[in-house]
Amino acid sequence: EEPPQPTPGDPYAEDPQRHPALRINTLKPFNAETPPELIAENYLTPNALFFKRNHFPVPVVDPATYRLQVQSSGGRTMSLSLQDLKRRFPKHEVTATLQCAGNRRAEMNAIKNTNRLGWGVGAISNARWGGALLRDVLAEAGYKPGDKGHVCFEGLDKDQSGTVYGASIPFKKAMSPDGDVLLAYEMNGEELPRDNGFPLRVIAPGIVGARNVKWLAQITVGPEESQSHWQQKDYKGFSPSVTWDNVDFSSAPAIQDMPVQSAITEPGPGACVCPGELTVKGYAWSGGGRRVIRVDVSLDGGKSWHMAKLTGKEQLPGRAWAWQLWQLDACVPEGTKEMDIVCKAVDASYNDQPNTVAPIWNILGVLNSAWHRVHVSVGEE
Amino acid sequence: EEPPQPTPGDPYAEDPQRHPALRINTLKPFNAETPPELIAENYLTPNALFFKRNHFPVPVVDPATYRLQVQSSGGRTMSLSLQDLKRRFPKHEVTATLQCAGNRRAEMNAIKNTNRLGWGVGAISNARWGGALLRDVLAEAGYKPGDKGHVCFEGLDKDQSGTVYGASIPFKKAMSPDGDVLLAYEMNGEELPRDNGFPLRVIAPGIVGARNVKWLAQITVGPEESQSHWQQKDYKGFSPSVTWDNVDFSSAPAIQDMPVQSAITEPGPGACVCPGELTVKGYAWSGGGRRVIRVDVSLDGGKSWHMAKLTGKEQLPGRAWAWQLWQLDACVPEGTKEMDIVCKAVDASYNDQPNTVAPIWNILGVLNSAWHRVHVSVGEE
Ligand SMILES: [Mo]
Ligand SMILES: [Mo]
Repeated sequence: EEPPQPTPGDPYAEDPQRHPALRINTLKPFNAETPPELIAENYLTPNALFFKRNHFPVPVVDPATYRLQVQSSGGRTMSLSLQDLKRRFPKHEVTATLQCAGNRRAEMNAIKNTNRLGWGVGAISNARWGGALLRDVLAEAGYKPGDKGHVCFEGLDKDQSGTVYGASIPFKKAMSPDGDVLLAYEMNGEELPRDNGFPLRVIAPGIVGARNVKWLAQITVGPEESQSHWQQKDYKGFSPSVTWDNVDFSSAPAIQDMPVQSAITEPGPGACVCPGELTVKGYAWSGGGRRVIRVDVSLDGGKSWHMAKLTGKEQLPGRAWAWQLWQLDACVPEGTKEMDIVCKAVDASYNDQPNTVAPIWNILGVLNSAWHRVHVSVGEE
Repeated sequence: EEPPQPTPGDPYAEDPQRHPALRINTLKPFNAETPPELIAENYLTPNALFFKRNHFPVPVVDPATYRLQVQSSGGRTMSLSLQDLKRRFPKHEVTATLQCAGNRRAEMNAIKNTNRLGWGVGAISNARWGGALLRDVLAEAGYKPGDKGHVCFEGLDKDQSGTVYGASIPFKKAMSPDGDVLLAYEMNGEELPRDNGFPLRVIAPGIVGARNVKWLAQITVGPEESQSHWQQKDYKGFSPSVTWDNVDFSSAPAIQDMPVQSAITEPGPGACVCPGELTVKGYAWSGGGRRVIRVDVSLDGGKSWHMAKLTGKEQLPGRAWAWQLWQLDACVPEGTKEMDIVCKAVDASYNDQPNTVAPIWNILGVLNSAWHRVHVSVGEE
């Protein structure tokens, strides 16, 4: 199939080429997820298959003239080139999983349509990021560890009226020696792909994707969170009882840390498996640096459970920013006609996932961390 | 009713008198919870009604001769009297909720008996604690904030063979400026009650009760967690599939932070309520300093939800150590015969509670944080 031809005046005309295996959700802006069957094949998601979540056209940036504007503590603006960021600050590397707040929204839409992107289980990926530590840059800009407030980011991406994407994280996270927040220019040892924020993005490990601002243009520090739409009126969690008619956006905190999550990536929903040996695979992750300590898998809809084998690199306590992949080698008894495969993970604070989606359904369709369920049929040997 | 008379040679002969309203689980050792109908009446639980969880007889301590032994960084032992702790270190105050790992175990026992204490919803209480900051005492003993390992505590309480109660917390929690870990000698402005650790106990906010060692005798710092039974072979969470025959205690981390929790304290299970106005009350809390941001209450077993009104003192971000009490003023329609009241809370990391108990059941009967359900009948007006 030919890629769609750019139309004159199309603001998306300069968007990059993408890997054909990506599962496209929307083309303009480009939103696409890793194919589920490939997720558990790679602890580090290849850059081309890393999920893409764009709000606007991908900015066209010349790395030679690119500058990051950092508001200094004294009020002046510090302007940093890419070379400045690479030469004046030590390179720090972090393996961190990013997850879109809307990952697994399709399951929420199936209950009651939110009219928002119907992500499957693939709006989550893991990479090794390299860049300057945000705290080093903030220190250079005159900020002290005990300062308070929020670090606000603006991207180069904008809508047609000129409104730029923005978000913020707590100053404490930004400055914490254990926070590992990066201004990243490297992803799995390569330049950032244009879709993932070239030439510079925020990596705030343990925190929802939406705060990991791409195509970073500007950093400011202040007493308030970002006043952007995405910090104030999106990426918040509400009770299932809240409707668009009665929602009070100020009543819920902006999502930062995410809750414990897991999903089955193999077999896929509706697959036909053979009796005998069956390998179930998936991922598990929790926000806030909380390590996943266990994944339970059920083959009977949640009545009985088996412990999956977890794989992943060693991580520091409280700084478990990366997912773990898991696998269960199971046996499908002869005569089985169908199976409800279910997974749930437990994190280092012994947080559990809720059993079902409906009680956590919300108008924004975010934070679906219910047990993941895959129904399969069993064929003849 | 007369209190039981001490029998000669009874190691519990010196146990204190207790408030008659406490719901007793076991007398020797004394384990008792706050009466559920009184829980939501007091943001600060009165000392006499604070839950009591003893492993052994209550030590008899003369405050004049009491000494805390602190192993210094150089290996020497620092011996501190109560007066030393009160005079040489600034008094720090923290409002913190303590919860027994076994709170709500009765619901687990109802599924499959763990043969352990069948706590209701009252093995949780909240108090204003005053004492020396553990980090100040550790600094005096020569430890530096960047040191690593675990801070191990031993109590004066012991079994008949002389084995003393012990537990540990991560050094990082102990030394964190945001950790608020106390060596507490004050509880709601009074001396600690004997049952709650007189004259000195650990208060490790956000962390399971079991690590908040009472009748504190000794503090050591080392690379390993406490080697005590309670750190190594109890107070850990396992998959429902783990049995006493196949349990591997080393496979699960010792509980520290607890997951998000909530319970209904009024009306009680099996109560008969009147049609018309109904007030539902309860508590909600999460470990690790994560604030509870919302409590959802259902009157129809979880099909539809209402947001409860939360009350509690303002708390610092990431240092929300105290519970919040909540209330829902509901309407019971004429003609209703019975109701399934359910509550669930959400914390600042948007963690949810699991819907049901069976999938989190475990051989130790700990960490029951499932939705709490109360079935009531509706009488005539
Ligand atoms: Mo997102
Ligand atoms: Mo406990």
